[in-house]
Amino acid sequence: MTGRLTGDARKLELSPLLAHGWSEVEGRDAIAKTYEFGDFVSAFGFMTRAALWAEKMNHHPEWSNVYKTVEVTLSTHDAGGLTMKDVDLARKMDALA
Amino acid sequence: MTGRLTGDARKLELSPLLAHGWSEVEGRDAIAKTYEFGDFVSAFGFMTRAALWAEKMNHHPEWSNVYKTVEVTLSTHDAGGLTMKDVDLARKMDALA
Repeated sequence: MTGRLTGDARKLELSPLLAHGWSEVEGRDAIAKTYEFGDFVSAFGFMTRAALWAEKMNHHPEWSNVYKTVEVTLSTHDAGGLTMKDVDLARKMDALA
Repeated sequence: MTGRLTGDARKLELSPLLAHGWSEVEGRDAIAKTYEFGDFVSAFGFMTRAALWAEKMNHHPEWSNVYKTVEVTLSTHDAGGLTMKDVDLARKMDALA
């Protein structure tokens, strides 16, 4: 199991994500981001690409979609909070978006 | 624009859906259903099939996914409530699930 990110390692890994539209979720050790696309096809196309990667990484997002908007929350259930799995998936999603 | 479902037509169209796991959303003229699948691949596979139909029907769900669970809410934004578009999409999603 991947360990929870704490202390300096947590700050180091999160700061580039926080600078790119991710934010820390209140009351929970998780990060979230809202992606906005041109239309539904683009939004769901992003979700499809991310889904294939998530399955390959064996780490899955909590996410919702309303037309051209996709809201993503990442946290590692098994670890009870943020781990490197979330950081890796967040980076991958940013690269795919 | 498709008109909002009201009165007897509304009851007639909704009752089979309510008998199949859909429920009326509180405080909003919308219906919702939670689908549970065997795993993420099945859940996202369902979303992908439904997304293609939604785009073809030009009517899109509000939905969220957490691993093997998919929560769907349907309402017609332009009409400010439930229309036959929602009924048709709900039936299609049930057929796909």
